[in-house]
Amino acid sequence: MRVLLSSLIFGLATMSALADGKQPIVLRDMGSFHVGGRIVEVSGQPVREVVFTPGGVPAKVDPNGAYQVEQMYVQYFLPQDRRGKLPLLMWHGGGLTGVTYETTPDGREGWLTMFIRKGFDVYISDAMERGRSGWTNMFKGEPVFLPQSDPWVRFRIGDADSWNADPAKRTTYAGMQFPIEAYDQFIKQGVPRWLTTDDQIVAAYIELVDKVCPCVVMVHSQSGSFGFKVAEARPDKVKALVAVEPTLGGDRAKVALLKNTPVLVVYGDNTKDHPRWSKIRQGGLDYLAVLRGAGGSVDVVDLPDAGLKGNSHMVMMDKNNGEVADLIGKWLVTRGLAE
Amino acid sequence: MRVLLSSLIFGLATMSALADGKQPIVLRDMGSFHVGGRIVEVSGQPVREVVFTPGGVPAKVDPNGAYQVEQMYVQYFLPQDRRGKLPLLMWHGGGLTGVTYETTPDGREGWLTMFIRKGFDVYISDAMERGRSGWTNMFKGEPVFLPQSDPWVRFRIGDADSWNADPAKRTTYAGMQFPIEAYDQFIKQGVPRWLTTDDQIVAAYIELVDKVCPCVVMVHSQSGSFGFKVAEARPDKVKALVAVEPTLGGDRAKVALLKNTPVLVVYGDNTKDHPRWSKIRQGGLDYLAVLRGAGGSVDVVDLPDAGLKGNSHMVMMDKNNGEVADLIGKWLVTRGLAE
Repeated sequence: MRVLLSSLIFGLATMSALADGKQPIVLRDMGSFHVGGRIVEVSGQPVREVVFTPGGVPAKVDPNGAYQVEQMYVQYFLPQDRRGKLPLLMWHGGGLTGVTYETTPDGREGWLTMFIRKGFDVYISDAMERGRSGWTNMFKGEPVFLPQSDPWVRFRIGDADSWNADPAKRTTYAGMQFPIEAYDQFIKQGVPRWLTTDDQIVAAYIELVDKVCPCVVMVHSQSGSFGFKVAEARPDKVKALVAVEPTLGGDRAKVALLKNTPVLVVYGDNTKDHPRWSKIRQGGLDYLAVLRGAGGSVDVVDLPDAGLKGNSHMVMMDKNNGEVADLIGKWLVTRGLAE
Repeated sequence: MRVLLSSLIFGLATMSALADGKQPIVLRDMGSFHVGGRIVEVSGQPVREVVFTPGGVPAKVDPNGAYQVEQMYVQYFLPQDRRGKLPLLMWHGGGLTGVTYETTPDGREGWLTMFIRKGFDVYISDAMERGRSGWTNMFKGEPVFLPQSDPWVRFRIGDADSWNADPAKRTTYAGMQFPIEAYDQFIKQGVPRWLTTDDQIVAAYIELVDKVCPCVVMVHSQSGSFGFKVAEARPDKVKALVAVEPTLGGDRAKVALLKNTPVLVVYGDNTKDHPRWSKIRQGGLDYLAVLRGAGGSVDVVDLPDAGLKGNSHMVMMDKNNGEVADLIGKWLVTRGLAE
């Protein structure tokens, strides 16, 4: 009887997984690597004795010598049923890591697995200086640490007066799609960032593109700027650019380089009246008009105009993230980049 | 004809994947989350205007308020064909991240996918303060940055005189299994570490164990100490401990707590004559003798005695990493923890 009961429970668990609508993810391969970076020499420092584990055996550490700096971490997932014609590279925004695209803070599927399920070889990276890319004390300036409250308004969950230390007293824009019950969980994804390291970040992304492209590059927020810079540097390899809430466009003097790289730009809700985002969006639109004028192929989607209302800056975590992923997926099919 | 040719090429690509001996990895789910940490209040600091993207729209950042610190990142992969009876948690060593267990620096499979293929639900984490767990300027003391040369001797690739800045002039122990041609690539996996954060690291691991266990915990190097501490704190949840080259054992006053937690300890080659590792190994053996005396179930494998010669400290990256994974896998079967 106990055996029967446990079989029944196991059966129910399996049925529950199926009831979630989750099909297995079948990968022909998965793995990771680091790209880029350089060696920096340090000299004239004293040798130290370091106890790495309390009570452990001391080790002599000579801080002089060569240091590896500025490399970037990349993790990849290659589906068995490949329907994306090119790999999809996912680049995250400032103060965050590749985790942006993984499971949402409230535990739903994120865009990483959604695009694997759509048949894309996905390469997800932590920008140089962040997450598994490591960091060094040789960057210029000081790292920025953001308080818990900062993204609530800056990422357009609520307006200027909406934050409160008491979660019950925080307010949001109407119909907000960000999973606010998991806001404190989202904040755990944050990592320090510098304001001086754009060149090294772009250099590492270019090394990645040289290694795995031709490809489609998806960028978000701060990496919008990086995506355009890398496409300008490797226009033959970046075959399409999906820019989700990019903070800036590319170089107006270089738009001719991008005329064979179709661009999809997606903005969430509440950008137009927002004191900061209205300027960011307009700056993007102004750049895109110049790109279009040079023969570039540009599609701009304000999600509310597509019937998707209430999206925050963190579109890939919003409760309708699947609908936005479908919109992007369809654009890639239309552009001949997926079946 | 073009269709036929592309079918032929696709067919060859599929055959090539099969020729690699790689079967697809079938997952019933994969994802990630953060656990643990706490909120710290900061006050009395001036508001700053920050331009996050050069040429971008300035944002006001008030550094006062609540900061999230000390959380830990965890990524999980759950195979469809589950043969491990409990989840397997993989904890890395000092100055590294979960990347330790991923693809080896020379591009072979690492233990993450090997143990997924063995049917284990694998939870792989970046210790608090490292990688995707983020870090804060509120830790005590200074972070440690290690020069490129440091691990060569400390991780027993070669003896005290074996390092040379010129890769062609570096020497190794006889029969070295570490992929030395990819040593510089391995160094890219390094991240800064503090020497003051053990308590917070252990606290985050305990939160993970409370969330996903009962389980088997695999530890390496620095996390050896953490594995024993967490098992002492949660002896009912850590059902087995696989300690790969642990730097220290547990608390001798608490061995009675671990008598129902079987322990496998694995050491690589060249430990016995190494000035530092001979002491680390002996300290481990002395602790394990006390644990055994209290009724603990302990197996110690010096890999050379099992016919596996030339292993460095980074056993999971060595060229015979599959053979060591098999040895561990068989031990887990023997202990009734896998089919």
